[in-house]
Amino acid sequence: MDSELHFVHAPIVAQPLRLPSHEVGACVEFSGIVRELEAGMPLTGIRYEAYEPMARRMFGRIFSDIEGKHPARSVTVIHRLGWVPVGEASLFVRVLAKHRGPALGFCGEVIDRMKADVPIWKT
Amino acid sequence: MDSELHFVHAPIVAQPLRLPSHEVGACVEFSGIVRELEAGMPLTGIRYEAYEPMARRMFGRIFSDIEGKHPARSVTVIHRLGWVPVGEASLFVRVLAKHRGPALGFCGEVIDRMKADVPIWKT
Repeated sequence: MDSELHFVHAPIVAQPLRLPSHEVGACVEFSGIVRELEAGMPLTGIRYEAYEPMARRMFGRIFSDIEGKHPARSVTVIHRLGWVPVGEASLFVRVLAKHRGPALGFCGEVIDRMKADVPIWKT
Repeated sequence: MDSELHFVHAPIVAQPLRLPSHEVGACVEFSGIVRELEAGMPLTGIRYEAYEPMARRMFGRIFSDIEGKHPARSVTVIHRLGWVPVGEASLFVRVLAKHRGPALGFCGEVIDRMKADVPIWKT
């Protein structure tokens, strides 16, 4: 499985989709967007920080853990750091797989695991 | 919940994402792509047909069924009909929701229900 992980400090711009093989039947793309209300509190945005070396190690482990359960051809994760205004994406995930089940399953799990185990936080 | 359903006879081009409100925190986009091998048989493409009036009624029912379980702000489904070459998308689904769980859940279920209940077939 190919994997890409990027931390960016500007609006997330995903590369146009290029299929690595004719055996990819499913592409799932997820964008996580900063909402105006968090726990009832109005926001204008959220500032994200990461401890990048550890975040990279953890993502590597997470990708390989999930691949055993949801076989995918490639995964791309882009996380924006710094100030992210309401209405803009802090996270982009793209998963390519042969079938939709693993593509959707991989995408959901990588986000759950990221929130649980990767040192990225709101300040 | 807003919903859009389009049948197209040319390559699928999704509209750029526009957020309908600042309470959307998750956007899931799915593309279903024609693979080269189906059940071990090499293909150059697949021809899809639909019985459109019934397909529209069924999608309406499916959207409203799923909304009860996975609350979403909007869903867009685009299905290509006619000849779809290998490597091109036959299906695009975009779901916007407050949270990722319902967005991913809605997306997966709408495809499962489509395959089970909507009169779209390969010829």
